[in-house]
Amino acid sequence: MNVGTIYGVGLGPGDPDLMSVKADRLLRGARNVAYFRKAGRTGQARKIVNGMIPAEAMEIPMEYPVTTEIPVTDPRYNALLAAFYEDCTQRLKALSDNGEDVVVLCEGDPFFYGSFMHLYSRLRERAPVEVVPAITGMSGAWTATGDPITWGDDVLTVLMGTLPEEALATRMAQTDALVVMKIGRNFDKVKRALKTAGLYDRAWLVEYAQMPDQAVTKLSEAGDKVTPYFSIIIVHGQGRRP
Amino acid sequence: MNVGTIYGVGLGPGDPDLMSVKADRLLRGARNVAYFRKAGRTGQARKIVNGMIPAEAMEIPMEYPVTTEIPVTDPRYNALLAAFYEDCTQRLKALSDNGEDVVVLCEGDPFFYGSFMHLYSRLRERAPVEVVPAITGMSGAWTATGDPITWGDDVLTVLMGTLPEEALATRMAQTDALVVMKIGRNFDKVKRALKTAGLYDRAWLVEYAQMPDQAVTKLSEAGDKVTPYFSIIIVHGQGRRP
Repeated sequence: MNVGTIYGVGLGPGDPDLMSVKADRLLRGARNVAYFRKAGRTGQARKIVNGMIPAEAMEIPMEYPVTTEIPVTDPRYNALLAAFYEDCTQRLKALSDNGEDVVVLCEGDPFFYGSFMHLYSRLRERAPVEVVPAITGMSGAWTATGDPITWGDDVLTVLMGTLPEEALATRMAQTDALVVMKIGRNFDKVKRALKTAGLYDRAWLVEYAQMPDQAVTKLSEAGDKVTPYFSIIIVHGQGRRP
Repeated sequence: MNVGTIYGVGLGPGDPDLMSVKADRLLRGARNVAYFRKAGRTGQARKIVNGMIPAEAMEIPMEYPVTTEIPVTDPRYNALLAAFYEDCTQRLKALSDNGEDVVVLCEGDPFFYGSFMHLYSRLRERAPVEVVPAITGMSGAWTATGDPITWGDDVLTVLMGTLPEEALATRMAQTDALVVMKIGRNFDKVKRALKTAGLYDRAWLVEYAQMPDQAVTKLSEAGDKVTPYFSIIIVHGQGRRP
């Protein structure tokens, strides 16, 4: 019997029209579709492909044992997640051993801050794995602002809002163009860091980039409302432009 | 008469299978296709779409008056390029005024260090323009290495090889994950900077990512051969992984 391939398929920022031709083809022909989700939720990745995967495809939801209930610095967080990823790996490997191809849905680009990487690193020595790159969430976000992110020799820095405030502010002050991801409960800290770095007035908040609820707001006009974890903050470069 | 839309269509890293569904549809239905190229060359963007655009489509090659013959610091460089971009803008606007949609081919993602941005900034107040994001060349490159680029809280820095050596080395030493673009004649300088920053032994050279000639080499084993301008150097992040 042949061994099946596990495809880590990047879905891009959220608009099915922005998926790659290859991702579209793999989804529409899928026999097994796996995806991460928070317990009791549909899951963002699964939502994006609604209506695209065959009705008869087997779905394999992989439910995080913990998301924000335990801080990532707690040793229990790592232990719980490691056990979870190992369990998912074994489920996918069992399908592959039975000759079944599996499509694993990945928001954005699979190798760019994604959860699939934790399966990939465990699966790569044990089963055939193929990764399909995709448009990153940040490309979706800077396109939504209607302004290019980088010009000429601009330096681009990508920061996670989970970093300490001082580290954020220091790195923000050194870059030409900036992307900040994982905002959510880090929103106030990220705003303070942007002010310290002198970038607050040039920053844009993009919520639900390339999705039906897309909202693009000057950060200084965004108020203090809670913003989704997957919001992205953009500061455009000002580099050389003939 | 209706006014036509000018579409800046990202083609992604080079594999037509990695174009977005939207880009694929726009290309296959295009009546007018514009693209940049060096005088006397086919142009990389035009090569990527070979066989995809209708035979009856009008092609609008836009030939750079200068590429590397004059240093970018020379004031004549800016003047020549500005006149060129203004001329291209007028050609595309004339088509739009006549009710014609135009697809402008963009390698990678249009808003990420692209030439189309110089038309976009001139056209946006004068004609309807729409930008279709795409998989960046760097996503194509890190996927080609078979290893994720960023984990957990990793900081990603994107640098152009055109920066001064000291600036390169300083910024390389401060980041977790690194992408260096615009290598070409900057190859030796970039390698020296990577050595100064202590990253040389972890660096990968990706040539022709996601194209038929794709080559992935440890930089330390790449030798001193000339590498194409659009090569990309990758240093993977080492962040948190449960």
